[in-house]
Amino acid sequence: MRQSQILLNTLRERPSEADTEGHGLLLRGGYIRQLAAGIYSYLPLGRRVLRKIEGIVREEMERAGVQEVMMPSMQPAELWMESGRYGSYGKNLMTVNDRHGREFILGPTHEEAVTSLMKNEVSSYRKLPVKVYQIGTKFRDEKRPRFGLLRGREFIMKDAYSFDISEEGLDLSYQTMFGAYNRIFARCGLRFKAVEADAGTIGGDGGSHEFIALSAIGEDTVAVCGHCDYAANLEQAETAAWKGESNGSGGDEGNGLNTPQVDRDQPVAVDTPFPEKFHTPDIRTIDQLTAAYSLKPEQIIKTLIYRVGGDSVAVLVRGDHEVNELKVGKYLGAEDISLADGSEVETAAGVISGYVGPVGLELPLLVDYAVAEMMDGIAGAGERDYHFRGVRPGRDFPLTRVGDFRNAAEGDSCPRCREGRLTLHRGIEIGHVFKLGTRYSGKLGVVFLDASGRERNMIMGCYGIGISRLLAAVAEQNAGEGGIAWPDALAPFKVQIIIVSIKDEAQIALAEKLYGTLKELGLEVLLDDRDERPGVKFNDSGLIGTPQVVVVGREAALERVEYENRHSGVKETLGLDEAVLRITEHVKNSRI
Amino acid sequence: MRQSQILLNTLRERPSEADTEGHGLLLRGGYIRQLAAGIYSYLPLGRRVLRKIEGIVREEMERAGVQEVMMPSMQPAELWMESGRYGSYGKNLMTVNDRHGREFILGPTHEEAVTSLMKNEVSSYRKLPVKVYQIGTKFRDEKRPRFGLLRGREFIMKDAYSFDISEEGLDLSYQTMFGAYNRIFARCGLRFKAVEADAGTIGGDGGSHEFIALSAIGEDTVAVCGHCDYAANLEQAETAAWKGESNGSGGDEGNGLNTPQVDRDQPVAVDTPFPEKFHTPDIRTIDQLTAAYSLKPEQIIKTLIYRVGGDSVAVLVRGDHEVNELKVGKYLGAEDISLADGSEVETAAGVISGYVGPVGLELPLLVDYAVAEMMDGIAGAGERDYHFRGVRPGRDFPLTRVGDFRNAAEGDSCPRCREGRLTLHRGIEIGHVFKLGTRYSGKLGVVFLDASGRERNMIMGCYGIGISRLLAAVAEQNAGEGGIAWPDALAPFKVQIIIVSIKDEAQIALAEKLYGTLKELGLEVLLDDRDERPGVKFNDSGLIGTPQVVVVGREAALERVEYENRHSGVKETLGLDEAVLRITEHVKNSRI
Repeated sequence: MRQSQILLNTLRERPSEADTEGHGLLLRGGYIRQLAAGIYSYLPLGRRVLRKIEGIVREEMERAGVQEVMMPSMQPAELWMESGRYGSYGKNLMTVNDRHGREFILGPTHEEAVTSLMKNEVSSYRKLPVKVYQIGTKFRDEKRPRFGLLRGREFIMKDAYSFDISEEGLDLSYQTMFGAYNRIFARCGLRFKAVEADAGTIGGDGGSHEFIALSAIGEDTVAVCGHCDYAANLEQAETAAWKGESNGSGGDEGNGLNTPQVDRDQPVAVDTPFPEKFHTPDIRTIDQLTAAYSLKPEQIIKTLIYRVGGDSVAVLVRGDHEVNELKVGKYLGAEDISLADGSEVETAAGVISGYVGPVGLELPLLVDYAVAEMMDGIAGAGERDYHFRGVRPGRDFPLTRVGDFRNAAEGDSCPRCREGRLTLHRGIEIGHVFKLGTRYSGKLGVVFLDASGRERNMIMGCYGIGISRLLAAVAEQNAGEGGIAWPDALAPFKVQIIIVSIKDEAQIALAEKLYGTLKELGLEVLLDDRDERPGVKFNDSGLIGTPQVVVVGREAALERVEYENRHSGVKETLGLDEAVLRITEHVKNSRI
Repeated sequence: MRQSQILLNTLRERPSEADTEGHGLLLRGGYIRQLAAGIYSYLPLGRRVLRKIEGIVREEMERAGVQEVMMPSMQPAELWMESGRYGSYGKNLMTVNDRHGREFILGPTHEEAVTSLMKNEVSSYRKLPVKVYQIGTKFRDEKRPRFGLLRGREFIMKDAYSFDISEEGLDLSYQTMFGAYNRIFARCGLRFKAVEADAGTIGGDGGSHEFIALSAIGEDTVAVCGHCDYAANLEQAETAAWKGESNGSGGDEGNGLNTPQVDRDQPVAVDTPFPEKFHTPDIRTIDQLTAAYSLKPEQIIKTLIYRVGGDSVAVLVRGDHEVNELKVGKYLGAEDISLADGSEVETAAGVISGYVGPVGLELPLLVDYAVAEMMDGIAGAGERDYHFRGVRPGRDFPLTRVGDFRNAAEGDSCPRCREGRLTLHRGIEIGHVFKLGTRYSGKLGVVFLDASGRERNMIMGCYGIGISRLLAAVAEQNAGEGGIAWPDALAPFKVQIIIVSIKDEAQIALAEKLYGTLKELGLEVLLDDRDERPGVKFNDSGLIGTPQVVVVGREAALERVEYENRHSGVKETLGLDEAVLRITEHVKNSRI
C-alpha cells in the first residue's frame, strides 16, 4: 500500500491520556483513537493488526474443532436473572431499556446466551460434544477505564464454549482448548505463562487457568516456581502449609468461623517472656515500627480488621506479607468482604488502627500459617500508643482458625514441589479457560438424554481471549523508544520501503521496482512515497514499526538499498536481489 | 466437514415466528435462531454464509481503495446532539447510561463517529480523498421488529464513508462505490435494481441511490421504466409533470404555501356544467362511490387533510392515486406531516371525512398534476351525504399550488424518457449510497486546508450495505419448497455428499474417497455421515441447500453416484471421476 493513500496520522508527542508506553505508542503510531473513556476506534493500521490476530484465532479454533457462531450483544435481562449473575455483575453490566421498557444486558460474556441456545439445539448424547466460538464486541461498565485497550468499556473478545456428556469429556475439551491457546499466544509472539487461577464471577469449580502476558504494567501478579512447573495467579497461589501439613481451608466445610480448634504440638520456649508492653507514640505503621526499633517486618504480627456481612473479623499476617482477601473470603464462605475503615476498626477493636493486636481481642482471629509458625512477635497492644513484644501465638492468642490467608511472596517455597522458590512477575491477562461443569446448564435447565435415556445436564467449559487486550499486550511487550517493533505474524505490513527523496528519480524507480516485486510475491508492503523530509519519514517508520525496513536513498542509482531488521537489529547495505532474498527468507522463517 | 459433528438442528415445521418463506427456511435449516424479538443468533451454517458475504464485501472494498477501520458501538450522546440527529432518530435510538449517568447511543450508523474521527486525523488537502469502511453490529429500536433478519433491532452492516475536497471528488468516490456495490450484489447472486432514492434521516442533498433486491415480500416499491434505464424508489419516483412542464417543487424555495400562483392556459370546455350536487348517503369511500354510480376511480378527485405543524392543508389526488407524504412534506419544507384523524378533519374542513371536497374549502390546496389535468371530476361537496359532479380544476377551486404529490403508479409514463411506461416492483433495500456534502462536516466543524491555505469543510459521502439483510434477501430469492438453494458464492458448503446407509461399507468407502478428493481440491464439502434414515437425510439436505449434492447409494459398489445440481435441476448418475469433474467444473464456472 502507498503511504500517501493510507489514513495514517502519527503524533509527535505522547498524548496525556496514555497510561502506559504501549498505549502511548499505539496512539502515536496512528493505530487507535479514543472516542470516550475506555472506548476506542481502530484506524486502518490497528484494524490490520486486529485482523491478523483474528485470523490466527480462527485457524486455531478450526484446528481444535471449534465451530464459529455469532450471538447478539443484546441479551434479555431475565436470562441473567435466571443464572444469578444479574446481581453478581452489578454495576459492571451495561444495560439498555427498549422502547417498551424491557431491559437488556449488553453482553460482557455469553454463558447465558449460549446455554439458552444449546437448550433447543441438542437433545441427545449422540450430538455431543459440541464446541462453538465467536469473535465480537463485549461491553463492561468499568468504574475506572484505564491503560487504553487493557481495561476498556467496549472491547473485542473471542469467547468459546464446550458442551460434553461427562467430566472426562470436559477434561478433553479443556485440554484441547488449552493447547489451542498456547499455540495462539505463541504465534502472536507473546512471552506468556499459563497459570492456575480463580474462577471469579464466571464461576464453576472444576478448575481454571489464566494466560498471562508478562509485562511490568500488568495488573495481575503471578507466582512461578523456579524448580517445577508450578505457576499461579497471586490471587490463587497457595503458600506452603504450616508445619508441612496440607492446608485444608475451612471454606469447604461452610463458614470457617465454626470450624473446630486446630491442635498444636506446643513447643516450649523457655526464653520467651510473656508479652511486654512498650510505648510507641504515633507509631502506627510497620514502616514506622521497623525504623524506630530496628526491627525486620517479619518480626511483626499485622492485625487487620475486615467486615464480613454485618460482622468483623481480624486477620493476622506477618509484617512482610499481604492479606489475600479472596482466600479470606473463601475460608469464610463469604462473597463480599472489605477492609474496615478507621471508625469501623475503633468500634470493632476498641482502639484506633495502628494499635490493634490479637492479645485479648474479642473477635474471631484468622491466623495465617506464617504467623502461627512464629515463636514470638511484635503486635499492637490494643491500647493507643502501645505495642507488645514477645507475643506468642497459641499462648497469647488462640490458634482456632489457622489457614492460608496471604498472598504468596517472592522467595516463598513452592507449594507443589516444596523444593523450588517462587518468583513473582507482573502480567496482563490475555486468556482464561474455565471448567464450568453444570453451573449454567443446571440453572438454565439444559439437558440431554444419555445412552440409557436418562436426562442429564450438559457439562460445560468456557474459554476467553481478549482480542483487543492481546493487541495491547503485544504493544507493551514490543514497545521501544521509537515505536512498537511488531512481531511478524501481527505486523500491519511485513516490510516498509522508504523513498528518502521523491525528487530523486533513481530512488523512485528502484523503490517502485522493489515494491512491485515484493507485492508480486504476495507480501504486504508499505511504500513511503510521501513528499516529506527524511527525518519525518524515519520517525514515522519507527512509529509504524514494520519488522523490516528498506531505505532507498543515495545509492539507488547503483541499485543498492539499506535493509534493516528491527528484531535482530541488523542493518546491511544490499543489492536489490539480495534485499528481496533477505526479506523473503525472513518472512519464511518467521512463519509458525 | 462431517455432518455428525456440526451443530446443526433442522426443524420439521415452519416456526410460527416466521413471517416470510425465507425467514422460515433460515430457521428450519438451522441457520439462525431468535433470542428476543428482532435479535438473532447465527448458528454455524448461518455464520458461514455471513462470512462469505463479508469476504466478498471486503474484496470489493479493497478493490475500490476503501480502507478498513473499526469504530465503537457506544457513541457519546453529545455527538448526536451536535449533528442534530439525537432528535430526528427519536425512539429508534437504543441508548445506554453508564454508571456515572453519561448517555451513549448504540450506533445505528456512524456518520457522527467517523466525522469526529476525521476531524483530528486529516488537516490538509494533500491527505484527501480518504475512504473508510467497517463491518459490524448496529442497533435500532424498531417499533415492530419483523420479517426475521430484515427488520431487526441488532443487525450487521457494512458502512463506508468518503471524504473529498470537492464536489467532483465526491462524484468520483460515489461512482466508485456505486460500481463496487453493483459488483457485490451481482457476486452474491442477487436479482436487484439500483434506484433513485430519498436520503431520509441520513440527510444530504447531493443525491442518493438504493439497491433493491427484488422480492414480493419486500417493504419497498420501485418504479422501473420499460424503455430507458430510469428506476426509482416509489417514495422518490417522479410522476410526469402536468402539461409537459418540468415539475419545480416548491420545496426548494422554502415553504410552498407562499409560492406564487401557477399561470394556467385555461382551456374552454363549453359542455362542462357548473358543479352539480347529488345525494350520496353513507357513501364515504372511493370504492363505495365507484360501485354505486358505475364510476372509474380516475374520475374522482380525492381530498385528504394533512396536519403540518399546527396547520392543516388539503392534498388533492386522483381517486386511483396515492398521496406521497414525502413529496408533500418536501414541498412544504416540513419534516413532520401526518394524515388528520376524524375529528381533525371535521375541525379543519367543517364536514366529516368522506365528504370533504375542494370547492369552497378554506384551506391551502395542494393539487397533484394529474388532478390539475382533469377536465372535470367528482368530489365531496363539503356537506354530509353529498358529492359534486362536474368539478372543474381552476374554475371551481384554485390551482395555486400544483405539484407532484402522489406515488407513481403502474402504467404511468416515465418521467425521464416520456416514452416508456413504469412498472412497479416490490423489493428489499440491501444497500444505500448517499452524497452527504457538508451536512456532517459542517455541523461538527471538520475542515481541511486547501491548496491555497483556505479552511474548507470536507465533502462527504456515505455508503451502507445491510449484511444480515442481504443474507435474508438471498434466502427470500432462493427459497424453494424444500429449502434455500444457495448461490454458489454464499453457500455454506459447495457440495454435500450423502451416504444413504452407513451400514453399507461400500457406500462409506466411496463417500470417504470422494470427500477426501474434494477436500484436497480445496472445496468446502459437507459429508452426511449420520446414522439416520434416508428420508431424514434427503429432507435435511434440502433444508441445508448446498448448490450441488452427491448421493452415494446402492451403486456405490460400482463406483457410481448420483449427482444433482440444485440450480440447473440436472440429476445424473456418474462414475466417481466424472462426478469430481462435474463438481470442479461447476465451481470454476460459478466464480465471478
